[in-house]
Amino acid sequence: MNKLLIVGTVAFDAIETPFGKTDKILGGAATYIGLSAAQFDIESAIVSVVGEDFPQEYLDLLKNRSIDLKGTEIVKGGKTFFWSGKYHNDLNSRDTLDTQLNVLADFQPVVPENFKAPGVVMLGNLHPLVQLSVLEQIERPKLVVLDTMNFWMDNTWDDLMKVISKVDALTINDEEARQLTDEYSLVKAARKIAEMGPKYVVIKKGEHGALLFHNEQIFFAPALPLEEVFDPTGAGDTFAGGFTGYLAHTGDISFKNMKNAVIYGSNLASFCVEKFGTERMQDLTKEDVHQRLEEFKALTQFQIKLT
Amino acid sequence: MNKLLIVGTVAFDAIETPFGKTDKILGGAATYIGLSAAQFDIESAIVSVVGEDFPQEYLDLLKNRSIDLKGTEIVKGGKTFFWSGKYHNDLNSRDTLDTQLNVLADFQPVVPENFKAPGVVMLGNLHPLVQLSVLEQIERPKLVVLDTMNFWMDNTWDDLMKVISKVDALTINDEEARQLTDEYSLVKAARKIAEMGPKYVVIKKGEHGALLFHNEQIFFAPALPLEEVFDPTGAGDTFAGGFTGYLAHTGDISFKNMKNAVIYGSNLASFCVEKFGTERMQDLTKEDVHQRLEEFKALTQFQIKLT
Repeated sequence: MNKLLIVGTVAFDAIETPFGKTDKILGGAATYIGLSAAQFDIESAIVSVVGEDFPQEYLDLLKNRSIDLKGTEIVKGGKTFFWSGKYHNDLNSRDTLDTQLNVLADFQPVVPENFKAPGVVMLGNLHPLVQLSVLEQIERPKLVVLDTMNFWMDNTWDDLMKVISKVDALTINDEEARQLTDEYSLVKAARKIAEMGPKYVVIKKGEHGALLFHNEQIFFAPALPLEEVFDPTGAGDTFAGGFTGYLAHTGDISFKNMKNAVIYGSNLASFCVEKFGTERMQDLTKEDVHQRLEEFKALTQFQIKLT
Repeated sequence: MNKLLIVGTVAFDAIETPFGKTDKILGGAATYIGLSAAQFDIESAIVSVVGEDFPQEYLDLLKNRSIDLKGTEIVKGGKTFFWSGKYHNDLNSRDTLDTQLNVLADFQPVVPENFKAPGVVMLGNLHPLVQLSVLEQIERPKLVVLDTMNFWMDNTWDDLMKVISKVDALTINDEEARQLTDEYSLVKAARKIAEMGPKYVVIKKGEHGALLFHNEQIFFAPALPLEEVFDPTGAGDTFAGGFTGYLAHTGDISFKNMKNAVIYGSNLASFCVEKFGTERMQDLTKEDVHQRLEEFKALTQFQIKLT
């Protein structure tokens, strides 16, 4: 089951943070998921779409990490999806400055033959009907993980409910979990989400870590306390890539192993925010990741003496 | 070293939350610290002041938990310190409706003879000069922990710096750590606080847990995810009581053991918020605490397979 099928945007981002701003750089949910999952010894593929303006250099960057791009369509004469945003000083919130759907507007995902029986599917943030279309093209995998955002709740509620009902796990941020369920308590929100379908619910709290819920069990992975968060763009997708990459690699979707997957997700996300865009993820080594795992252990593990 | 000296308010609180409101009930930092620390097999004493209006029933409640009240002065004809506050809907912020200092205005702390050589001192939130006066009356303990708040930063900066320079550990909430250091990053804030004196810094993040810093080491204890936080009043002081109570009990102030103390602090605080005021802390048993410790382990401990 170590095939990971990734669906999501491959895009251009222009980012402004208190530390500086970028021109159009490589971005997109599937890009971050793919780069993160590439830390594991798995086969992965991205189903997505770009325009003819998308640099070969970016495609090569993904291919060089053994990410299969047969399902990433290049639309002749088309322009790649573009997003531009500016972060506030606390880096916890941002304003979208520009969104140009371009080729994404008519995106019809096509899963390549060699990924029609994946072990794990990561449905990155996209229109719920695109996510559904991918599920309809494949054999039922061992694990389907869905990511979504408030935009789809506001605009495509019924379609979103349909795809949510078909997945095993949902990754979502805290504010969006509250919006989805109308519950302030994240414990209650996770329970309501589970009633919608997903047996596993991961609520991402940014700098405050991530919670994994399954039945009445809860696991918590902190974010690594950093001196400086440089650019939060892609942290959630990098988390998702670490989570699903680790599960595809180990082939074990027990709750116990999902704890490890959440730790790996937090581990990888902690690198993503250290530089602009995908920069840090590009030069990341297995040694870096293993060393940071030791930091996560030091941060969270204890040997208590009962009183 | 299992003597714990507690300094802080013993008071009346009137609390309003989205779930209801109380009349004047038992409150005060030293009360919460004392009730929390009473979960450990230690000798403790409260140095504080109350008015003649303070019910014998409340004093008995503390005495029955083996808390020495020889240092808690009862001012004849005086009125007890009163605080009243109303929480916002998210329970993360509150407005103070009323503060009546009463007998606290002229409080001159007197440490009783049998606590002049304590192992651990918990200086609860109070005027820095009161905290300093207590330190001047005692032999240097193995560990002095200080709690403070923004009010003293705004009004008594120099005195606060004096007491901060004399303590081993500071417990402070995240917003106050930022105010104290003018650093947004909590990692940088903790480092600056350490330069002011305290070798150990605990930054409390409410529902987002607590961070322990020592040199370049960091440990994180999450808050237990709860279905409902009923009343956050006293949670920070209950944390401090669990932290110092555990350290006094074990007599071990290594960083490794402080991790456990932070877990015990979070453990006890998770009970405090379940009911109004001190209600839940009053009927808390050792079995409750041990069971919740298992929940904390399930929440945070993992056995990772390297990839």
